[in-house]
Amino acid sequence: MIYKRVALIGLGLIASSMFWGMKRGALAGEVTGYARSAETRDTARRIGLCDRVCDSLAEAVQGADLVVLCVPVGVMGAVAAEMAAHLAPGATVTDVGSVKREVINAVGPHLPHGVHFVPGHPLAGTEHSGPESGFAELFDNRWCLLVRVPGSDPQAVAQLHAFWEGLGSNVETMDADHHDLVLAVTSHAPHLIAYTMVGVADDLGRVTDGEVIKYSAAGFRDFTRIAASDPTMWRDVFLNNKKATLEILGRFTEELFALQRAIRTGDGDHLHAYFTRTRAIRRGIIEAGQDTDAPDFGRGSTR
Amino acid sequence: MIYKRVALIGLGLIASSMFWGMKRGALAGEVTGYARSAETRDTARRIGLCDRVCDSLAEAVQGADLVVLCVPVGVMGAVAAEMAAHLAPGATVTDVGSVKREVINAVGPHLPHGVHFVPGHPLAGTEHSGPESGFAELFDNRWCLLVRVPGSDPQAVAQLHAFWEGLGSNVETMDADHHDLVLAVTSHAPHLIAYTMVGVADDLGRVTDGEVIKYSAAGFRDFTRIAASDPTMWRDVFLNNKKATLEILGRFTEELFALQRAIRTGDGDHLHAYFTRTRAIRRGIIEAGQDTDAPDFGRGSTR
Repeated sequence: MIYKRVALIGLGLIASSMFWGMKRGALAGEVTGYARSAETRDTARRIGLCDRVCDSLAEAVQGADLVVLCVPVGVMGAVAAEMAAHLAPGATVTDVGSVKREVINAVGPHLPHGVHFVPGHPLAGTEHSGPESGFAELFDNRWCLLVRVPGSDPQAVAQLHAFWEGLGSNVETMDADHHDLVLAVTSHAPHLIAYTMVGVADDLGRVTDGEVIKYSAAGFRDFTRIAASDPTMWRDVFLNNKKATLEILGRFTEELFALQRAIRTGDGDHLHAYFTRTRAIRRGIIEAGQDTDAPDFGRGSTR
Repeated sequence: MIYKRVALIGLGLIASSMFWGMKRGALAGEVTGYARSAETRDTARRIGLCDRVCDSLAEAVQGADLVVLCVPVGVMGAVAAEMAAHLAPGATVTDVGSVKREVINAVGPHLPHGVHFVPGHPLAGTEHSGPESGFAELFDNRWCLLVRVPGSDPQAVAQLHAFWEGLGSNVETMDADHHDLVLAVTSHAPHLIAYTMVGVADDLGRVTDGEVIKYSAAGFRDFTRIAASDPTMWRDVFLNNKKATLEILGRFTEELFALQRAIRTGDGDHLHAYFTRTRAIRRGIIEAGQDTDAPDFGRGSTR
């Protein structure tokens, strides 16, 4: 047991996976949960998500030595303000938001003296959301990034580190701004691009929806998977990691125009060299154990 | 048995999967194979790919009642010219290229009278290439598109249709230009976009390669999978489906700029509405049976 009482605020994919992971690893004495929506709380009670589902934020955080904010980045500040007076002295507050600088700016000022704030970000997810989408293995062999804030208590950081390892993650610590730039490259910009491409396909009058869906075997299918992620979560990510995302998108557009020009002018050498270079990155990811190279992408063939 | 002798020209992922699929379904009496590279022919002989690996194109196609061009789109015309004199009267020639109009323009004029040309395109693939990457199940439940050309022999089309069904595919027939537009949306533009994004990440000095690879859990990982496809194949696709690809990329850029503007101006409603719309398309694809909704993307969790 790493924490005596853990409060999960917001009961979606991440919180529910954390709950099942805590049970698997016996990481917490008691887990309380709170969600703003009564429907979500009812679902949680029905499926046994959390040891105790509370009808108020205050009740959920009371006496907890770890409070995990699992709400969209855009509302974290408001939730922090509302719960601040009810936090136990010496408690650790963390979050699972995909953006760190703006979360620190929004949450930090509300937390009382004696409460430790250790922002976090598990790099794990699926295209599904909601309390019923979680599973204990979500964080296994995935990264969890913890972020240093001025005055971080080393003991509180170490405890949260051990907690995430208990959930199956590999844990690293980094600076908030660096986190936001790395994530803009590896996640935020790719998501916006995927959303855009799926939107374009949807718009295209001459290619009916039916055909786009029917013939989506290659390329587009992976985009639709990305573009099916939770709209509220992603709206908040983009609005709160504006600078880094726009910078990366600017670079992206520049490169895309260069490739479009190569197509238009028939510069096959440029295209071939570019595609050869990008292929090498993929090899690195497979070697780093961050994806499978199964030939059927897990569709269940019996090669 | 649907064909007495099938010649596979070019021995990469598609041809090798076709061979194993033909064996599984007992679709051909004998399968000959030819690849320009002696190394590829040696590999094929070593792993038992094809009943007979031939050292010349002429030998491979001699007496075949089906010849399948599995070479990059850019060399199909040259291969057709070289083999034309050796084709058996009444033989069917098909191809597996991702582009159809330019292939028809390049191959069609070389084929002698009495040989049936039925262009095709199986919508199946993995990120792997080469003779050792094939497996019999690649085409199972995937689409194969056959394309009408003027004067197509209905009997030859029907036979090839049955052949692809024997390989596990669902077969449809469509017009070449429509094919090229549909594929530009569902495959070609998404591939170029993925290549671009992976290239940008690779370029970015401040985010080391190591980090991009290490933290690629979400979004970017799917892009790298797409961007690991065969560079020669894709160079040829873009150069030979120039018009449709550039048209779709133009639309894409327009939409991307609108979303970038929404981020810059903080227009959360625009973003949320857009993301909600794209999510629905994903649901359609899963319902159409073209992808799994496994929560772990086939990474092997035991949910």
